[in-house]
Amino acid sequence: MPEITKNQLKHIRLLKQKKYRQEFGEFLIEGEKNIEELLKSNFKINALYATSDWNYTNCKEEVTLVTTKQLSQISNLSSPNKVLALVKLPINEYNESILKNDLTLVLDSINDPGNLGTIIRTADWFGVKNIICSTDSVDCYNPKVVQTTKGSLFNVTVHYQELSTILANTSNKIYGAALDGEEINKDFSPQKPSILLMGSESHGISEEIENFVTDKILIKQNGKAESLNVAIATSILLYQFTS
Amino acid sequence: MPEITKNQLKHIRLLKQKKYRQEFGEFLIEGEKNIEELLKSNFKINALYATSDWNYTNCKEEVTLVTTKQLSQISNLSSPNKVLALVKLPINEYNESILKNDLTLVLDSINDPGNLGTIIRTADWFGVKNIICSTDSVDCYNPKVVQTTKGSLFNVTVHYQELSTILANTSNKIYGAALDGEEINKDFSPQKPSILLMGSESHGISEEIENFVTDKILIKQNGKAESLNVAIATSILLYQFTS
Repeated sequence: MPEITKNQLKHIRLLKQKKYRQEFGEFLIEGEKNIEELLKSNFKINALYATSDWNYTNCKEEVTLVTTKQLSQISNLSSPNKVLALVKLPINEYNESILKNDLTLVLDSINDPGNLGTIIRTADWFGVKNIICSTDSVDCYNPKVVQTTKGSLFNVTVHYQELSTILANTSNKIYGAALDGEEINKDFSPQKPSILLMGSESHGISEEIENFVTDKILIKQNGKAESLNVAIATSILLYQFTS
Repeated sequence: MPEITKNQLKHIRLLKQKKYRQEFGEFLIEGEKNIEELLKSNFKINALYATSDWNYTNCKEEVTLVTTKQLSQISNLSSPNKVLALVKLPINEYNESILKNDLTLVLDSINDPGNLGTIIRTADWFGVKNIICSTDSVDCYNPKVVQTTKGSLFNVTVHYQELSTILANTSNKIYGAALDGEEINKDFSPQKPSILLMGSESHGISEEIENFVTDKILIKQNGKAESLNVAIATSILLYQFTS
């Protein structure tokens, strides 16, 4: 197995930043479980770096050997886990026909990588195939997002689009989660096809986008908390909309 | 206003560790919003440290002035926010009568502070008053947990108990979330009073505890993700059980 060079080390470290991911057209995926899912997916692997104790018998890709120390230098994890891949950035071409699906999830200005990663993972659980994010949302190829998705990035397509253009041109019901929305419980049935629109944790749905909402909804509250975490609220609503 | 001493700085830093929180009988709460909730609660404040730009007109407690630099030395936040309080550790005496509530949430070995904090916040939203954690679970007075609860720690009581003793002595239905459980959707109605038991993200419900489960349940899956984050799964089930 070939060994990693200093230039490769430098290159990989740059991929932690969005501008270099876009410049080089690739991103990082780490850890045994994620790489196992990656190898089963259609994503194109540009390079694989692994420590000598990594054992994946079905891997047909060329593997570059790294020491534990080198892996920790290129890894974003506090406990690097045997293997890291450079993966070609997929080109997710947006086509409005995806709005014909029963449910499309639309995210307005989600900034926290952990929240976006968790939402992608939950969307995958419930079979939601497409998420449309506002262009100012956190990049889904951010290493923390990728890690949190636990492999669900291979099953869910994340688009970055001007939300106002999309929402202005659909006849779908647009359900927007809002603290002044109508309370819903498990008896609620959304129209299909529908859009579920979630806003940022600190500001909710932005003013410009709120105008497109046809139905403001709120998960029924029986206690005292002022709000729910956005990944939690999104997940409960995905359950309600798909269950 | 008095100023902070070196000994106080040292004392506060020690409170990041559970053993010192227990030794000193106090824990930290930070940030304007949390302190606002704290001042409305029944929790006893031992000390308040604030920068000169903190403005809380209804505060009747004595305030010790700190510089922004000093606040960052005692804070656990990457962006410290004006005020920090030392709060007396509450004594949460466990009484089995809490199991007479419609729903009690029981957590087996939750280790991630963010997950526990989010679960406490969601439990508060849905009006669940008590959470029972196994004794090896993360401490709910851990600074990261406190921060993630967004003030819900004042409304939800978290007990640390030997789960096997409690579960062996109740006639409540015990619903345990498990990947080999029976799939439930929004038509599911739990018996009351009931216990909802959640296991750790990596290992699920431990073998010893699993024997007490009367009904294994799984949130119905329509997609490909192998599992849900434990805070997400707990939140969806809390919605289903209380909605």
